[in-house]
Order: sequence, then C-alpha cells, then structure tokens
Amino acid sequence: MEFWSFPPKYDNSYLPDAGSKYWFPERETMDPGKRDAAILERLKQVTAYAYKNAPFYRTIWDEAGFHPDHLKSLEDFEDKVPVIKKADIREAQARAPLFGDHLCIDEKDIFRVHGTSGTTGRPTAFAIGRDDWDAISNAHARIMWGMGLRPGDIIFVAAVFSLYLGAWGALAGSERLGATSLPFGAGAAGMTSRAVMWLKDVKPKAFYGTPSFALHLAETAKDEGVDPREFEMGILFFSGEPGASIPGVRDRIAETYGARVIDTGSMAEMTPWMNLAGSAETDGMVAWQDVVYTEVCDPTTFRRVPYGERGTPVYTHLERTSQPMIRLVSGDLTRWEAGPTPCGRTYPHLPDGVFGRIDDSFTIRGENIYPSEIDSALNQIEGYGGEHRIIITRDAAMDELKIMVETTAQIAAQGKSAIDAFEQKLKDDFNRMLGVRTYVEVVPEHTIPRTDFKARRVIDDREVFREFEANLAEKK
Amino acid sequence: MEFWSFPPKYDNSYLPDAGSKYWFPERETMDPGKRDAAILERLKQVTAYAYKNAPFYRTIWDEAGFHPDHLKSLEDFEDKVPVIKKADIREAQARAPLFGDHLCIDEKDIFRVHGTSGTTGRPTAFAIGRDDWDAISNAHARIMWGMGLRPGDIIFVAAVFSLYLGAWGALAGSERLGATSLPFGAGAAGMTSRAVMWLKDVKPKAFYGTPSFALHLAETAKDEGVDPREFEMGILFFSGEPGASIPGVRDRIAETYGARVIDTGSMAEMTPWMNLAGSAETDGMVAWQDVVYTEVCDPTTFRRVPYGERGTPVYTHLERTSQPMIRLVSGDLTRWEAGPTPCGRTYPHLPDGVFGRIDDSFTIRGENIYPSEIDSALNQIEGYGGEHRIIITRDAAMDELKIMVETTAQIAAQGKSAIDAFEQKLKDDFNRMLGVRTYVEVVPEHTIPRTDFKARRVIDDREVFREFEANLAEKK
Repeated sequence: MEFWSFPPKYDNSYLPDAGSKYWFPERETMDPGKRDAAILERLKQVTAYAYKNAPFYRTIWDEAGFHPDHLKSLEDFEDKVPVIKKADIREAQARAPLFGDHLCIDEKDIFRVHGTSGTTGRPTAFAIGRDDWDAISNAHARIMWGMGLRPGDIIFVAAVFSLYLGAWGALAGSERLGATSLPFGAGAAGMTSRAVMWLKDVKPKAFYGTPSFALHLAETAKDEGVDPREFEMGILFFSGEPGASIPGVRDRIAETYGARVIDTGSMAEMTPWMNLAGSAETDGMVAWQDVVYTEVCDPTTFRRVPYGERGTPVYTHLERTSQPMIRLVSGDLTRWEAGPTPCGRTYPHLPDGVFGRIDDSFTIRGENIYPSEIDSALNQIEGYGGEHRIIITRDAAMDELKIMVETTAQIAAQGKSAIDAFEQKLKDDFNRMLGVRTYVEVVPEHTIPRTDFKARRVIDDREVFREFEANLAEKK
Repeated sequence: MEFWSFPPKYDNSYLPDAGSKYWFPERETMDPGKRDAAILERLKQVTAYAYKNAPFYRTIWDEAGFHPDHLKSLEDFEDKVPVIKKADIREAQARAPLFGDHLCIDEKDIFRVHGTSGTTGRPTAFAIGRDDWDAISNAHARIMWGMGLRPGDIIFVAAVFSLYLGAWGALAGSERLGATSLPFGAGAAGMTSRAVMWLKDVKPKAFYGTPSFALHLAETAKDEGVDPREFEMGILFFSGEPGASIPGVRDRIAETYGARVIDTGSMAEMTPWMNLAGSAETDGMVAWQDVVYTEVCDPTTFRRVPYGERGTPVYTHLERTSQPMIRLVSGDLTRWEAGPTPCGRTYPHLPDGVFGRIDDSFTIRGENIYPSEIDSALNQIEGYGGEHRIIITRDAAMDELKIMVETTAQIAAQGKSAIDAFEQKLKDDFNRMLGVRTYVEVVPEHTIPRTDFKARRVIDDREVFREFEANLAEKK
C-alpha cells in the first residue's frame, strides 16, 4: 500500500503515471477484505494515539469500558467504541479553551485555525496541524486526480475563503496536484459579475463552489449575454449542499455548463472532507475508506447497516493527529452499496450522495419530507424559474406546507391561464410525491434572492410560533 | 550572503537562531556598497533572463538600444534601462492573452493566477510560478520575522481572499514562518462582528488588514461593548492604504488597540509586495533591496534622487521568474534616507512610508493637495468622529473643496455652539494647512459608511462635470 503509515508521511514530489486513472493504484483497487484488515490495524494506532493524547477520549472510553487494546475486529470497533456528536466537541471546547481537550498536539504546531461561522451560537474552532495540512493536501490531490484533474489544469475556486474549510480544501488539493489555482473566492459585492468576466477569459478546466452558486452564476452570465458553455469548463465539483447528487439539480447544472458535475464532501470536522467524493466515472460518491473510515449506521444503535440500506454516516479519521474525530455521528442520511464503484475502485459507493441531513427533514402531519426531494422534482419540471422557498406554517393547530416557486418568463408571458396550469401541475405533483396537501404560489423569475453560498430554502414559521408559545408560557 | 542565487532556491526548513532579530543577519546588515555590487550582478542575471524569455523586454530594450551585456554599474541601469508602466503591462496582455508576452515561464508552471479587480476596465492577470511562490513565502516570512513575529504566534489575516494579493501574501509569510494562521478574510456580510468574537477568544499575536478596516473593526467592537485592547494583540501590520505611515492614523490605531502598528506594501505587481515594510524598531518602511531593488526617482527623468529627497519608487524584481518587473514605475510618492535604519538594517529607509499616489493628489486653484495630509490632520483633532469625505466640486468655473467630517457623540451632545466651534476650528486648520478656502460640513458619528477594504474618501465632482462637458462637445 502506497504511503500507508501513521502518523501519515507523504512524499510531496510523488505523482502517479500520467496515464493512470488512479493516484494510488494499489490502495484504490485492492481487495476490500485486505483493506479492512489494514484499516483495523490503523484504528488500533489511532485509538491508542487518541487515548494517550486526548483527555476527551480517555474520559469517554474509560466510562464506556473501552480500551484500545480491546480492538480485535471492525465489529469490536462499532460494538465497543462509543459515538461522539457535535455537541460533545462544543463541550470539550468550553471545558478546555481554545481548542478543546480533544486536541492532541502542542498549540504551537497548529498550522491553521478554522471554524464554524457561529451564526447560531458559539463557534467551534478547528485546529489543524502542520503535518495534517500536508496529509489533507495529499488526500484531496489524490481524490481530485480521480475526478480527472491533472497537473497544469486551471482550477477556479469560487467559494468564500474564511473560516469555512470548503474553499481551502479545494485549494490545498489543487496546489498539491500541481494544478494552476485561481482562488477567486465569493461573498463580496460584485464578485459574481467579475467571476463571469474571468471565467470567459481564463476558461479553466474545473470549477469548485456550491451548486446554488453555480446556478446563480449561470443566471448572471446569461443576464450579461454570456452562455456559460463559453467558459468551456470540463468539470464542476461541489460541496456544501447535496445538490450535485440530486439528479434534477445535477443534470440542470451539467446541461447549463456542458460539463461533468461531481459531488463531494462529508463534514468540516472531518477535513480531508473530500473523503466522500464522486469521480470521473462514478456519480454520487465514493467512500475513500483509507482516508476516513466511514460506517453507514442505524441512527439509534450506531451499528453498520447492510449494504443497500440507508443510515447515517459515522466517521473516523485515519490521517489526522491534531483533533482526530473517532466515530463522529454526522446526522446526515445516505445509502451505501458494496464496491467496486463504476470507476473500478473497491470502496463502498454512495449512489445518491449524502441526500440531506436528518435534522433538515421535517414532518408535516406524520409525513417525513426532505427538502432535497422538492429540489429534485422542481429541477425536472419544465417552466421552473430557478428558485423556490419551502414554508412550513401553522394554521390554527395544523401544520401546512406552502411552496413558493418561480416560473420562467416564457410561462409568465403566456398569461394567467398558463400560470394557473403550471400551478395546478405543481400541486398535483407535490400532493402525489409528498403525500400531504401542498399550497403552491407561483411567482415571476428572479423574485427570490439568490446566494453565493449555501441556499436556505426552508422557512419554518412553526418555530416562530413555538418560540412565541414558549415566551407566553414563561411569562405565566 | 544567505541563500543568494538566481533563480532563487530556499531551504524551507531554515529558521534563524531564536534570539536573532534578523532572519538573514548577513544580508540585512552587510555593507551597502557590497550589497550594491551583489545587486548589480543579480541585475545582469535578471535582465539576461528577461531578454531571453520575454518578447516584451526584448522589444522595448532593442528599441532603446539596451542589451543586458551593457550593464556595468547601477548608474548604467538607471541610465540605459527604460522604465515600464502599468499601461505597458495591460498592452502586453492584450497582445498576448492571457498572461502577456512578459510571461517567462511555461503556462503549466503557473501556480497561482491573481489580478486586479477590473472594477475600472479590463483586469490585469498576474501569473505566479511555483518556485516564485516559494520565494515570495520566504521573503515575507523573513520580513515578518523582522516585525517581531515568531513560530507558533497566531496571525489573524483579515482582508479579502480573492484576486487581491494582500491577504495571500500575509498568509504565505505566516505559513513559511511556522506561525499559526487564522485566515479570517473580510468582505462578506456579518464578518466584522464575527471577527470581534473570534479576536476576543483567540487573542492573536498579530493582525493583518487595511487601516480603514482596523478602525471600522474597533468601532464595531466598541458598539458591542468590547474594548479592542481586550484582543491583547501585539502587532497590527497593514497594506493597501498609506494610513499606517500617517502619524495621526498610525497613532490612533496604536492607541485604540494598545499595539505596535507597522506599515507594509509596494504594489501587487511587485509581489513579494512586503519589499517595503516597517519592522519591530523602524517606523515608516525599510526598502529590502535584495528582494526588490527600489530606486526612488525623479518622476520625469527616472534617475535616482539623492537620499533625503522625494521621488517616485521604481521597482525591479530580483527574485521573480514568472512575470519579472524590471523598472516598473509605481506612480507613488515617497522620501528616502540612507541606512542604517533604526532596526540596524543597512537598507534605505522610507520614514514617511509611501505617502500617497501622485495621481491621488489633486490641485485646487494651483495648490497641490494630498488626501493623506487631510487624513493625518483630522486624526489628530479632538472631536473627530472617525470618518470623513473630501468632495471636490465645481461651482461655476471655480473648483471648490468641501470636507464632510464626522464629530463625536460627546461634541454633538454639547449642542449647536460646540458643533459650530468644532466646524470653525476645522475651517481655520484646513485653510492654514492647505492654503485654499475649505468648506466644512460637520455630521454626526457613523453617518459615513465604513469599509472592510480600502477607503475611498475623495469624491471628485469635477469629473462628472468634465464628462458632461465632453458629452456635450461630442454631440455638437
């Protein structure tokens, strides 16, 4: 197995043969049983390392009666090692500022500090060691090679460079790959128009951003008389939203840009977050098990579900020494299949990507509804104007679902009867698909604001109602 | 001389002795005559390299009758090598897209693409080679060491990461130095408040941004009940605006944060743009001549002015192989002094920094006025509310100067007579200082918008008038 050691140590001058579709042919195509055996040995090293260096893990494991010496099989791992959750990390940080008692390295060896935005409550700080950054760059370069990217390709990174790790992860991979990076960023006023100008001139091989931003960018280009196909991009790869694995959204982006669309990304905590990523020949995502060990689990027992079934990913770092995450529950939802993947890798395959967070779904009169299903349906309906909002309201004691949908200028130009027919079609489709009564409001194109980051399409009026009720109760 | 070769080649594991105040003791403190001799030899290499690889230089030099073999002294250099201007670079790029015929390396060896924002006209693209990026990182780490930064220090980079090279240059130096980087960025909605929260928790050793943003950030902190001194920062270093060398602005920032303020930065084209930078003991700027050779020149003859006099910097890259700039006229204005500098370096000293671009100054009825002088004066006047605008208007055929100035809440609370007295004082001060009649309008604190990038304080109404006249003339 190429460069397989803990702590990881990579030769930064290594590149695969130009003709190879694999960065590490052996690691990527080996017998999965043999890989599992190697992963088990690595898990012994990682848990021993964490037990020694992190009071966080020592405390949790002692309490659960687990010791790294107990680890004899992958079944032991899921059986004996308790899962951790984001809230545990936040507590660790509150207990031992600034980086928590899960930090396993000296603070002076921290290369980068990143974190959650903290828009809702106290931010979580991520500390990434110097050697970790190196391993992250190598992992991302390897996965991006699998997408079809090669040295000398121009990669346009169009996501905000700040605390958020998305853009930085794409850049680190691009640099290690020997590509030419154009770290354009996003988020400031006027940048979308400027991106159109640069893309038209530079014609990069690849683009990284969020699906929402790619769609917004295409609209901006068209408004300026530029067909996004003029950018002549080959690959658009995404993270931050499930869009690139939602067939309707994926196909719409692919069609708009005339390019291949690739979905990537697990969680910021798990950086190298490209551990889940599609490839040149594989839609959905490949679980790169030798970078981050992913178990798709039953969300109550946290035992692996059989291939073919749905569950929530539980992640374990195999190449991080700063703040290793061991059995971190994502709270996302996915379905996994045994490998090999269409690209010939012997990793598990997540054909639908990570299709929505469990806590992103909502229940309307007993029906579980995933916003990504609504996204997907709309993107396949002719006349959809490109943006929508899902509004959950409370009418008396009943929850009601309302979807505000833009329609195209063409439909709007045909007058009221065409708009009414479009509205009726949406109602029928949603009622059938979602199993609950849906109110639809059709609005003109460009009515709903676009975003250069992740779209927030669900507006939960019930929360407002609940807070109101709670406040009332408190005052009584 | 430590690591002195062309093309440059650095050992990225090198660090000076922990107790040394110099990164490269020999290069920084050597006899200036000996350094000049080494620079002359380097100029021979750089010009020979450019002549061989860049049609851009070959054409210009052939026309001017210069050949690299002619170079026998630094006097030859200023006498025989024609200066180039930004417009020449734009033309080179239009002639040979995408990167111009001054590009000396293979396109596949380009590590990064950056550029001007292109807010006014076509953007200029900067191509930076892989080895160049390495040399840039080494140069910036060295200059940041001179500021007093050390491995393990936390450096908070608060400028937008995009085409603009400022933030990237600070980050590259921080990384090579072995510091811990927090690349916070700037520019997106809500980031200033979040920066306050992070600074309070992280308490970084150093901060990088623009002077305007540091002042805006301090106001935001105070609005949230946080004294910027609670950040406990030791060093704030700046580029992008002349503020950090303007005594009034510098002292105000230093006082507000209780920290040392250091001015840095030449031009994006000249990256490593920290070639001009203050240090732990030197205010204004040191001209790091062995990184970029700076000649302070008469702006018409482009011959060096004697030490002690004012002129415009003309820059020559000594460590760039991708798009080397050879005798690029900055159009800025500075004054230089012979070394050694207060920090003991034998480089020339720019005690006032780069105090305003020649084309930023304007003339009102024959008087040359520098916006930075107005900045400096206001920042030293009690009652100044933190922001102002300079408006040049045309009243009939005469230019008039109007300055809109914020006053503090304290003055405002004292009522009309206090405000009138403040206004009268400003009028008197400006009339005396600038030599022209000045109209002053006093407005309440927080009336004028702040910026998280470079402030644009001059509003030239005359241009509107001129365009209007030109349009009229055209129609006739």
